[in-house]
Amino acid sequence: MNINGVPYRTIWRSSDGKAVEVIDQTRLPHEFVTVRLENVADVANAIRVMQVRGAPLIGVTAAYGVALAMQRCATDIELTQVCQLLLATRPTAVNLRWALVRMQEKLSGVAESDRNVQAWLEAESIADEDVVINQAIGQHGLALIRAVWSNKLEVVNILTHCNAGWLATVDQGTALAPVYAAHDAGIPVHVWVDETRPRNQGASLTAWELQQHGVPYTLIVDNVGGHLMQHGQVDMVIVGTDRTAANGDVCNKVGTYLKALAAFDNNVPFYVSLPTPTIDWQINDGVKDIPIELRDGDEVTYIHGRTREGELVAVSIAPEGSAVGNYAFDVTPARLVTGLITERGVCAATKHGLAGLYS
Amino acid sequence: MNINGVPYRTIWRSSDGKAVEVIDQTRLPHEFVTVRLENVADVANAIRVMQVRGAPLIGVTAAYGVALAMQRCATDIELTQVCQLLLATRPTAVNLRWALVRMQEKLSGVAESDRNVQAWLEAESIADEDVVINQAIGQHGLALIRAVWSNKLEVVNILTHCNAGWLATVDQGTALAPVYAAHDAGIPVHVWVDETRPRNQGASLTAWELQQHGVPYTLIVDNVGGHLMQHGQVDMVIVGTDRTAANGDVCNKVGTYLKALAAFDNNVPFYVSLPTPTIDWQINDGVKDIPIELRDGDEVTYIHGRTREGELVAVSIAPEGSAVGNYAFDVTPARLVTGLITERGVCAATKHGLAGLYS
Repeated sequence: MNINGVPYRTIWRSSDGKAVEVIDQTRLPHEFVTVRLENVADVANAIRVMQVRGAPLIGVTAAYGVALAMQRCATDIELTQVCQLLLATRPTAVNLRWALVRMQEKLSGVAESDRNVQAWLEAESIADEDVVINQAIGQHGLALIRAVWSNKLEVVNILTHCNAGWLATVDQGTALAPVYAAHDAGIPVHVWVDETRPRNQGASLTAWELQQHGVPYTLIVDNVGGHLMQHGQVDMVIVGTDRTAANGDVCNKVGTYLKALAAFDNNVPFYVSLPTPTIDWQINDGVKDIPIELRDGDEVTYIHGRTREGELVAVSIAPEGSAVGNYAFDVTPARLVTGLITERGVCAATKHGLAGLYS
Repeated sequence: MNINGVPYRTIWRSSDGKAVEVIDQTRLPHEFVTVRLENVADVANAIRVMQVRGAPLIGVTAAYGVALAMQRCATDIELTQVCQLLLATRPTAVNLRWALVRMQEKLSGVAESDRNVQAWLEAESIADEDVVINQAIGQHGLALIRAVWSNKLEVVNILTHCNAGWLATVDQGTALAPVYAAHDAGIPVHVWVDETRPRNQGASLTAWELQQHGVPYTLIVDNVGGHLMQHGQVDMVIVGTDRTAANGDVCNKVGTYLKALAAFDNNVPFYVSLPTPTIDWQINDGVKDIPIELRDGDEVTYIHGRTREGELVAVSIAPEGSAVGNYAFDVTPARLVTGLITERGVCAATKHGLAGLYS
């Protein structure tokens, strides 16, 4: 995607080849800053503090982390330990595990002397594949948006939660890939952007990237979507997912479940965009078995923003000493999902639906 | 209720008898400040900028506003114009209209020379009645909480949205009156406090007043309630309402509808506490006919809080130039409401249920 007219991915190997660079997503929308990650500790920290976030991008970043480790020390022990360390950075998104397993499987069959080169090649393959996957998701989703538009011949209103845009991936995005594809194809689209408390990824990331690309959007608080759906102001919902169970349950940013309930109650189609690596074939009951990350309470009680004087500060919004329950994800039962948009096509959110694409 | 051990109402006639004093709710939880309202313009502004808020308190404040006007000029024209001006301050809560109609009906039958004295008496009656109403709501709700506790014999977890506590009323609260009654009766209760974007009345007001009274609570973002209900961590929901339709639909702070959907989906009882003046007998379809206030977008994009250095500032959380849709309320269809807790008792959220209490 372009930022002020310059094309960017969210992650790339530095020009000297020795490091990885990423966009520091904790500084958006107020500052566009890139960060150089030199080693595994940098990568683990970037994932943990959410300089990079979004299931696909977390996976790719971890893969690059393995490459950074292999260029210093390519032993079996190092490989195993690095993967363990990176796996522990975030518990919910399954792409992280998928990418690390792929790196480990690839590299364990390679001589130590070749591992550095092969690790970089594999990490860059994962990154390139992510872009191709998201382009395909965009095209499959475009067909759904086009169908709504053909019926309506007025602006298509799409609600999204959190950020599953290009900032959550290497490029294009998952939930937003169809939106960009439709916009670029000349279909008039408008996005209702949930601000997505507590970290406000909607207000700070989704709004920013839609603005950069020129897609019309309106920012709303997370509480508003139900009201809009009751009054016919949402044509479809498209969200991402951090882990998709084999039965079609989807785990995404907390609050997604509430939007799915509202969509179901108002007959609004509710789609989930996902690349294959977010599917966890080992889990058959997402609500029961997907681990939900519990994060620091300060993310709720302190809000980061820019003062009218331009200073970036954090402000407290609650009485001191308040207990906080900061659950980062929730699981939307498959029964509320209209369809899964994958790079292989669109299917029902069921074991059977997934089997049709992944036989 | 007590603040640092000193008993307060949220509104009272000043000791010189010439003005009204209120707690400035825009400064909580960081500063406890009272404001003196000298005339109708002060009152209208206090309601508009939400120094006072909450359907019952808005009604009482408006009644005092009429008294303030009458002590300067008690003509028929003044009475009519003052009521019109105050009625226009907030569109959704119906208590405002109810209180103004009551003042106007009372005073239009009174000689101009007596109107000043009678206006103050009537406003203070409305305030006193609000306290009595809420005590009765507390007792009826206490029975519901006690029933849950008797079954469980463990802490009763109650989720609430926005602030329908004593700060939303003259004293006691509506949704929180049962919570205080249960706590004071020795039943172990714990409250999940929705922060309630965009104005954070949960984080800033509900958390603060529960803390003052010593009731255990945990602050959560508005997105979390569904996850908690899926995992059995909510025993009941109690919220307030700004307008209750004759068919049992309830209009409350935006996002209430989403919590009601989640409660319904997880068999969690969903109660709405209300004093009789919030019932609008003229409306039979709340979703269609209750007017929803659309407020300034800055309430969403700027968040007020306290820096770690103790300064109170507003910070922007979104890209400049973002369009914002700031709907302040939504309507929860009666089919999702387990029961209405009124000062007359608990009834089904139906025309028939209400008829049982208001024959």
